[in-house]
Amino acid sequence: MNTPMQNVRVDGATRLFGIVGHPVAQVKTPQLLNARFDASRLNAVCVPFDAPVEHFEAIVQGLKSLANLDGLVITVPHKISARALVDRLSPAAQRVGAINAMRREADGTWLGDMFDGTGLLQGLAPLGFQLAGQRVKQIGAGGAGAAVAHALAQAGAASLAVSDPRQAALSELVERLRHFYPDCKVDIDHNPADVTDTDLLINCSPVGMGTGDGMPVAFGAFPAALQVVDIIMTPAETPLLKHARRFGCNASNGLPMIHGQLEAFARFFRVDPAEPALSTFSDVR
Amino acid sequence: MNTPMQNVRVDGATRLFGIVGHPVAQVKTPQLLNARFDASRLNAVCVPFDAPVEHFEAIVQGLKSLANLDGLVITVPHKISARALVDRLSPAAQRVGAINAMRREADGTWLGDMFDGTGLLQGLAPLGFQLAGQRVKQIGAGGAGAAVAHALAQAGAASLAVSDPRQAALSELVERLRHFYPDCKVDIDHNPADVTDTDLLINCSPVGMGTGDGMPVAFGAFPAALQVVDIIMTPAETPLLKHARRFGCNASNGLPMIHGQLEAFARFFRVDPAEPALSTFSDVR
Repeated sequence: MNTPMQNVRVDGATRLFGIVGHPVAQVKTPQLLNARFDASRLNAVCVPFDAPVEHFEAIVQGLKSLANLDGLVITVPHKISARALVDRLSPAAQRVGAINAMRREADGTWLGDMFDGTGLLQGLAPLGFQLAGQRVKQIGAGGAGAAVAHALAQAGAASLAVSDPRQAALSELVERLRHFYPDCKVDIDHNPADVTDTDLLINCSPVGMGTGDGMPVAFGAFPAALQVVDIIMTPAETPLLKHARRFGCNASNGLPMIHGQLEAFARFFRVDPAEPALSTFSDVR
Repeated sequence: MNTPMQNVRVDGATRLFGIVGHPVAQVKTPQLLNARFDASRLNAVCVPFDAPVEHFEAIVQGLKSLANLDGLVITVPHKISARALVDRLSPAAQRVGAINAMRREADGTWLGDMFDGTGLLQGLAPLGFQLAGQRVKQIGAGGAGAAVAHALAQAGAASLAVSDPRQAALSELVERLRHFYPDCKVDIDHNPADVTDTDLLINCSPVGMGTGDGMPVAFGAFPAALQVVDIIMTPAETPLLKHARRFGCNASNGLPMIHGQLEAFARFFRVDPAEPALSTFSDVR
């Protein structure tokens, strides 16, 4: 997937959007959203805001006070804590308990929404991944992990086994999933290294992002039919993905998740408000 | 003066700079600085931050906490209040009592500096304005006005008569000027409409920026030898400048002041740190 051309011109009247994360050097949203603004001839720019955890709240409160900032994308590790900094939550954000986008409403209040899950589904479908009816093993129950699990359950996964060393976050997520998706069998995964009886393995933990990182779990051989997704984007091929491809598995990094939610971001941020017909996913790849 | 081409590409690793003001739609710094970054092949972008007065401190404290923001340009009406938000002041900023730029130092502290005055001098010289030995009448004693008055006194103005409805700011500025430039005759101007015995008239008040604004003072006829500067940039021709040109005066808006300090900003923000030889003013016009 190539990053589309962006042709940004900034002047005093440019409207601001940002992606808030820590770190941010690896994010792809500015390139994608700026190309989208450019295509729509909108005088707007999306920039990265690198917000250390201890300053996150003060940074976002300051950004919200800017008269020319209209919206923020929220990424790791702030998706859960950002929930408290908006005035209202979309139904998806309420279910997931985290947000990955917030925008200023006409009345000055802020609305939070969550597009990671739908982005993942829209991004993976064209790559040949099966989700409905599948037995899923998921590593990581943080903000992005919660969104992914909800999306998988909503997409009709048969079962979902989730592991995370943070027991409180894990229990909360499992309870929420059971509440909202009674048709999906949701369990805490006490043996994450075992991929027998698993159709899809998905890593939503940050392990694999750091240089020198190994796999999030010490896996053995994979069956070739196992589908493997790592939502990390940088490096493009994590140790987990390399391992999966060695066994012939269909494997993808996190970039399709971002591409898959670009049009959702564009709608949410009111790019082309006059055009209800939205371009399709294939336009942005 | 045309705005130079800017060719901005933003990704997650882009370093941030900003100009903080209220309003900001009229500012030219993003275009100029981004063209400068582009010419130096620096992955950096300058964006406008529209900061209402009541939120200014919270906004700047938030921006200072961003790990990828390296510097801010400060403009009207925040130049004086920004002084309290840095850890150290340059000698120029100490004299003027205001800052128009701040940067993060290697140790994490913030340094404030003031380039308006030198920018004005460097910008006006090529346009045929005389400053040394001149009798100057100045309207406005705010942050930009203070910087301009210091620069004019430093450039050898024979006298400086300053008016401002804000008596406290006016008195403080006049006292500071008398202290630092004993060779310049500095007075409070009690009759701003009278331009007899005046060689240079300079407006540093915001009057003329708003639609429907008239001149800052109800002036009569101007002698053709009177030099007139209005530091406002938008509109490009204020009622004062229109009036001056009707009488054949050499007249300039505030754009040369911004162009004139571009290289100072570039040095301060460490663009081309390896290149001590700086390009000249004519490069950026």
